[in-house]
Amino acid sequence: MEGVEVANKQVIFKGFIDGIPKETDMEVKVGKIELKAPKGSSALLVKNLYLSCDPYMRGRMREFYDSYIPPFVPGQALEGFGVSRVIDSDNPDYKPGDFISGITGWEEYSLVHRTGQLRKIHPDDIPLSFNVGLLGMPGFTAYAGFFEVCSPKKGEYVFVSAASGAVGQLVGQLAKLHGCYVVGSAGSSQKVDLLKNKLGFDEAFNYKEETDLNATLERYFPQGIDIYFDNVGGDMLDAALLKMKPFGRIAVCGMVSQQSLSKTEGIHNLFCLISKRIRMQGFLQSDYLDLFPQFLEYVSSYYKQGKIVYIEDMNEGLENAPSAFVGLFSGKNVGKQVVHVADE
Amino acid sequence: MEGVEVANKQVIFKGFIDGIPKETDMEVKVGKIELKAPKGSSALLVKNLYLSCDPYMRGRMREFYDSYIPPFVPGQALEGFGVSRVIDSDNPDYKPGDFISGITGWEEYSLVHRTGQLRKIHPDDIPLSFNVGLLGMPGFTAYAGFFEVCSPKKGEYVFVSAASGAVGQLVGQLAKLHGCYVVGSAGSSQKVDLLKNKLGFDEAFNYKEETDLNATLERYFPQGIDIYFDNVGGDMLDAALLKMKPFGRIAVCGMVSQQSLSKTEGIHNLFCLISKRIRMQGFLQSDYLDLFPQFLEYVSSYYKQGKIVYIEDMNEGLENAPSAFVGLFSGKNVGKQVVHVADE
Repeated sequence: MEGVEVANKQVIFKGFIDGIPKETDMEVKVGKIELKAPKGSSALLVKNLYLSCDPYMRGRMREFYDSYIPPFVPGQALEGFGVSRVIDSDNPDYKPGDFISGITGWEEYSLVHRTGQLRKIHPDDIPLSFNVGLLGMPGFTAYAGFFEVCSPKKGEYVFVSAASGAVGQLVGQLAKLHGCYVVGSAGSSQKVDLLKNKLGFDEAFNYKEETDLNATLERYFPQGIDIYFDNVGGDMLDAALLKMKPFGRIAVCGMVSQQSLSKTEGIHNLFCLISKRIRMQGFLQSDYLDLFPQFLEYVSSYYKQGKIVYIEDMNEGLENAPSAFVGLFSGKNVGKQVVHVADE
Repeated sequence: MEGVEVANKQVIFKGFIDGIPKETDMEVKVGKIELKAPKGSSALLVKNLYLSCDPYMRGRMREFYDSYIPPFVPGQALEGFGVSRVIDSDNPDYKPGDFISGITGWEEYSLVHRTGQLRKIHPDDIPLSFNVGLLGMPGFTAYAGFFEVCSPKKGEYVFVSAASGAVGQLVGQLAKLHGCYVVGSAGSSQKVDLLKNKLGFDEAFNYKEETDLNATLERYFPQGIDIYFDNVGGDMLDAALLKMKPFGRIAVCGMVSQQSLSKTEGIHNLFCLISKRIRMQGFLQSDYLDLFPQFLEYVSSYYKQGKIVYIEDMNEGLENAPSAFVGLFSGKNVGKQVVHVADE
């Protein structure tokens, strides 16, 4: 197939947005691409197999340059984590047929210049798509956040919000493996059921059915919370602050950043930080990449032993990527949202 | 004087309050006290010389028992840090004439049962009253907060709010001694002048003259803030969050706890915690008491060398204690607020 020019379906970013992403912020178009990595480019021409839908991508849809990651470019395809197969390589570290995981385009074929961020995958008995979930950025976010930011101790009481999501479902399982008591919140009875019956959480609740989150957390944590892994911010963070135990830790992760998009009511209970000596810490998984090998070893090993499971929500076809992505922001996805673009 | 019954002027706590303390929440009354420590009590009968007015005391005026310190008892004298002289002792560790510092009553004479929390003072060339300020809880709050919570490095950019207060004035000086660049905020031009010309801050501003705190902090910290020592919370915290540098630290101290008293607008910029990987941590000085001896050594030594100064606002007479205390909440005090009750 090398050197052949083929049709290349793409999901184009139409322009900067405010608020929640809509399907109409993206457009599926068909362009052309030569299946060749140009000589001297050190690039790879890859076929994209799986694309990851992650909440942080919303931050790249704003015209805001003072972040850890630049915005998307209007008129060009979105970018995100993916699993791909190398078709042509101008890079000595990769050869056609290699499977890779890393940042790629939301399109059928991509020319990947930034090869430093790629990871070569050796397909084994773990699904390829897990490389953007359990074994990818979300899984590593859970691992680094839980072990490096939360300083967990056996027997501690752990609360996880957005607990059935790409990150939360692993946080809870890591906490259980570490000997903690774990409660998760999620937004449907189906998710609550998965948390309790498939993911091994001690308890779980549907926050949409709760009218008083303070009372809810009092019910699930009469003794208080040692660790809150916060994937949502807002009212849940305020309620958790009130229930934290002395010397508790709050890892601030992911979606709380959406508060930057619209003026929410604000957080009122930070006074608890003082009397309870709470440490509240934001983090990015990318600061802990030296731990990635040990993470892979740890999680793969438990997965193969059947002691970690991982729930994916798999959408079929690149043309369904916009709706899959948009669904993240209403909690439509059950588990890690992935788009299946092509077979190997 | 032992065994004699004398008049004992007291500042009585009238009852639990909401909101900001008023002078009428307290009442000066004259009772009687026998100048004797009862046999078998292990207590001390002391004459109070200096009483400390501290913002945390407001928390003890609420009927709220789930704090690190119980509320005041309505109908009884307030309590607080003070410097006292022992008149009678039933405790082998203390003898009449000893000077002590610790929690005592807001009254002329007190019977102190909780002797474990007292510290014996050896009067030297440091003013006795400094034992409730520079060498007392506020000074140690500055020391523990700055060195143990802020993890300062030489050359870092430090912002201190309520910077001329009992804690802030020492935080700034410790930061300067540590090789940091320090800017303070305060609520009057007189305080700004003290910060710049007496306390050695690099810059200072009067927040009451600023209309846009984001622009203000941009002006003083074009390169960003590494450490924010937060004594106020609220809008200043929101503005500082936006100006923090990656891996910045925010020590949350003292008065932010007042947010618990009235529903404020809330903090909106916590999303910065993630992209900037900020650690925000509340603390109580009492958790670091093992460092108290090294704190005393450090601060006394610099003070005696003239490298640390300390500004007190000294009110005369126990009957003026209520107004002195109330003045804290409008920023009337210039420096550490102390009440001089009696000479030695």
